[in-house]
Amino acid sequence: MLWSGWGDPAKASELPEPIRRLLQDMLGVRSPETPAVSFDEVRLPAVALPPSVLAELSDVVGAGHVRLDDEARIRHTRGKSTPDLLRMRLGDGSDAPDAVVLPGSHAEVLDLLRICAEHRVAVVPFGGGTSVVGGLVAARQGFAGVVALDLARLNRLISVDAESMVVEMEPGLRAPQAEQLLAAHGLTLGHFPQSFEYATLGGFAAARSSGQASAGYGRFDDMVVGLTVATPRGTLDLGRAPKSAAGPDLRQVILGSEGAFGVITSLRLRVRRAPAERVYEGWRFGSFAAGSAALRRLAQDGPLPTVLRLSDETETMIGLAKPGELGGLAADAGCLVIAGYEGTAEEVGLQRERASAVLSGLGGVHLGAGPGESWAHGRYSAPYLRDSLLAEGATVETLETAGFWSDLPRLYDAVRLSLHASLGSPLVMCHISHVYGTGASLYFTVVTAQTADPLAQWDAAKRSVNEAIITAGGTISHHHGVGRDHREAYAEEIGELGVEILRGVKDRLDPEGILNPGVLVTQD
Amino acid sequence: MLWSGWGDPAKASELPEPIRRLLQDMLGVRSPETPAVSFDEVRLPAVALPPSVLAELSDVVGAGHVRLDDEARIRHTRGKSTPDLLRMRLGDGSDAPDAVVLPGSHAEVLDLLRICAEHRVAVVPFGGGTSVVGGLVAARQGFAGVVALDLARLNRLISVDAESMVVEMEPGLRAPQAEQLLAAHGLTLGHFPQSFEYATLGGFAAARSSGQASAGYGRFDDMVVGLTVATPRGTLDLGRAPKSAAGPDLRQVILGSEGAFGVITSLRLRVRRAPAERVYEGWRFGSFAAGSAALRRLAQDGPLPTVLRLSDETETMIGLAKPGELGGLAADAGCLVIAGYEGTAEEVGLQRERASAVLSGLGGVHLGAGPGESWAHGRYSAPYLRDSLLAEGATVETLETAGFWSDLPRLYDAVRLSLHASLGSPLVMCHISHVYGTGASLYFTVVTAQTADPLAQWDAAKRSVNEAIITAGGTISHHHGVGRDHREAYAEEIGELGVEILRGVKDRLDPEGILNPGVLVTQD
Repeated sequence: MLWSGWGDPAKASELPEPIRRLLQDMLGVRSPETPAVSFDEVRLPAVALPPSVLAELSDVVGAGHVRLDDEARIRHTRGKSTPDLLRMRLGDGSDAPDAVVLPGSHAEVLDLLRICAEHRVAVVPFGGGTSVVGGLVAARQGFAGVVALDLARLNRLISVDAESMVVEMEPGLRAPQAEQLLAAHGLTLGHFPQSFEYATLGGFAAARSSGQASAGYGRFDDMVVGLTVATPRGTLDLGRAPKSAAGPDLRQVILGSEGAFGVITSLRLRVRRAPAERVYEGWRFGSFAAGSAALRRLAQDGPLPTVLRLSDETETMIGLAKPGELGGLAADAGCLVIAGYEGTAEEVGLQRERASAVLSGLGGVHLGAGPGESWAHGRYSAPYLRDSLLAEGATVETLETAGFWSDLPRLYDAVRLSLHASLGSPLVMCHISHVYGTGASLYFTVVTAQTADPLAQWDAAKRSVNEAIITAGGTISHHHGVGRDHREAYAEEIGELGVEILRGVKDRLDPEGILNPGVLVTQD
Repeated sequence: MLWSGWGDPAKASELPEPIRRLLQDMLGVRSPETPAVSFDEVRLPAVALPPSVLAELSDVVGAGHVRLDDEARIRHTRGKSTPDLLRMRLGDGSDAPDAVVLPGSHAEVLDLLRICAEHRVAVVPFGGGTSVVGGLVAARQGFAGVVALDLARLNRLISVDAESMVVEMEPGLRAPQAEQLLAAHGLTLGHFPQSFEYATLGGFAAARSSGQASAGYGRFDDMVVGLTVATPRGTLDLGRAPKSAAGPDLRQVILGSEGAFGVITSLRLRVRRAPAERVYEGWRFGSFAAGSAALRRLAQDGPLPTVLRLSDETETMIGLAKPGELGGLAADAGCLVIAGYEGTAEEVGLQRERASAVLSGLGGVHLGAGPGESWAHGRYSAPYLRDSLLAEGATVETLETAGFWSDLPRLYDAVRLSLHASLGSPLVMCHISHVYGTGASLYFTVVTAQTADPLAQWDAAKRSVNEAIITAGGTISHHHGVGRDHREAYAEEIGELGVEILRGVKDRLDPEGILNPGVLVTQD
């Protein structure tokens, strides 16, 4: 993973010429004044942790698994939001952990947490490092130091229960590794978020990830039937049945807890049979409203395709739904729907026939497999594009929310108006990528010309759009999470007593408050 | 509702002669020595609450909504488990609340909770009064008294959002009232548990109810998209979107909290279009194992009928799956499956055709609509039968659990062995009534001859079967809840840190511990 950007540098994509011209002509984008620093120029704080504490940590995991070198520290600094990348490009390594510790077992995690609690060392659980909401930046004040707890060594497929269609896997597995291990058994999770290439299973659970095929395979939180969690006070082991009436569903307290309540060390996950067939197709609707109505109909009355997404007019015109073809600007393109079907040949045939009838009946124009294949081909490439845009002098960032169907038009308008008010005339694109019977997500991509201080520029815009989302009744995140960047808006969303619930849980599981301090919730 | 039994006394059912003979010959059931007391003979404790507190409560709701009469107190004493009924039949009203208070609004509930917290009065939220796990028996020690907070006046359909397919309803609505209100809009919840005729929406949510059509409509906790909750510390308002990545799903902390964290005063519920067509059919399988395999296949690979249940050999033989025809004992009947389909005519046709192919392919023998109609007709009558059995001298009780598919055979055996060890040779029947991709529920009905002390007899059996379920890896309840009767086993299930989570939440929402004390969790 590129230390100051996304993914494999070899896959970096050049901006197509029409897009470059569009940026200049429409948004006034100009090359940034300060070029990005090189790796060697990143400024890191001195390691604050006392040698005695480091020795105790080494005793648990072995000296080779406590890393203090610049490379390890830089690679565990923050996540992959646009502000995170902007800071790295400026050489600001001030949030680097003092040490990166790699435990090899649940027992080692328990020991590490005990030691860190004793010496008041903040612990940032670290999976793929792909947070885009500041989920990897611990508060330092009042702590002896910060340790990044990298779970990369917990990367085993522990068991396969083919009868129950449940597998046990460790949290440090990256999604592609996990899919490869499952493929050997003819199984799949079906979880394909944009962060797929780098993110880990533990991160998916801790941040309630949702993949691009969530209509068919469910969100990641739907897949988790059991969890083992290491906390400073010991082990939590949850999930004896798919569903239960035995009290509150405590799995749902750990899911979305973003490392603030404990470290997930094992996951029992529902799996599906790997599909024999995959078909992705494009449909055109006259407007976002008409396309939304069609998605709603499929979500409420079925059949629901495995993949179902709708780009608004702007996103369709720019072609962001098909990053591989970006720049082939289409005038009057309406709104693009991608409908994908996965399963046995029989299932795919039946679902496709019935869903197509609904889409046609509601005004959709069938565009064939071209746009679908193009989407599938480019589905993980948008983050690479961002690096090119940042280098070019554009700020580009994404944000998302969700709401009930009747709230969505208001929510859509509120976000756009807020971004326009903060950023002048940015390019704002939107799509619906996750649908439910009662509502859907809205995912926005914003592009604007960088000012002299792009960090301050985005910070102001982000504050104002968070407020707009909360005021319009949406949730502050559909699948990115809370981290630090959404914490205040999240507190508004769940209210004072909602925050109290989180604090009550944290009191009991992490009384010293060492787990990801400042993320999700602040202590009393 | 019969004060010492179930339902409308006019619907009481006589035991068929073959069943009466079976009880005598096989189980040695003899008429109980002590006949049940009459209503007037129930012994009630004196009202303990001081007049000044009662006056404060009356100021909030009006004097007519604070009831101290014997009738109200008896009707709010405990729930409807077999031990509850046995105690009532003995005239034991020792658990009666001091007063029954009927608030008319969320604001009134808030005021009542504030007053009760101030004077340390225990509060038992009361819906339909159908708990079968001791969920309505508050601990009295350390409290000035106990108030039953009856939510019957909160019985409105507040709004219908037909676009989002979400309705807002109040918690005191009984299920039939709720369905009637929704039917006027062409909608349904599709929630039909055995307690349907009496239970309330608030109770369904607080205890994570699951209905007989859960395969098609989902569990009640799946239907709840938003909640308003009154606590001694104020209001919680949760649920801005179908799903969110904004932290833990706090709705899931209130669902299943059984009145120990707050009082649900409003529910936003996902609804479905009322089905145009309903078809219920019977299938025979050679064994419980073969039937289970067929249910599993439908749950994992589809299509999933709306209703799907499987009786084991004993339940099939006794005919308990069709209470209306009880007593028509069938030798070598194998195992009965009921498969039901609800929806548009097209959906029903398609689902039925495809599911039937799966059932046939796995060895099922089609029995036609007869057994299906008989099941549908008798679906709410089993609790009436219990009254007749108790009067006859038989103890009859139900208990349930759930687990992953590969654990079910072990769980099934463990429950049966435990009941046989405790009760000599009881009649133990079982069915699977709720299926998921990864597992299912097991619902047991036990019939045995009453000893001289049937309460002690059942108490010992219940303790041992709870332990057997936990040891075999099952959850202590699939849809009955925790209450007091499952509290210890539940603590084993979720472990010490799980209990700590609950305590942490209760600390914050109910610091004086007045809400349903002793139910779900004990305080530190």
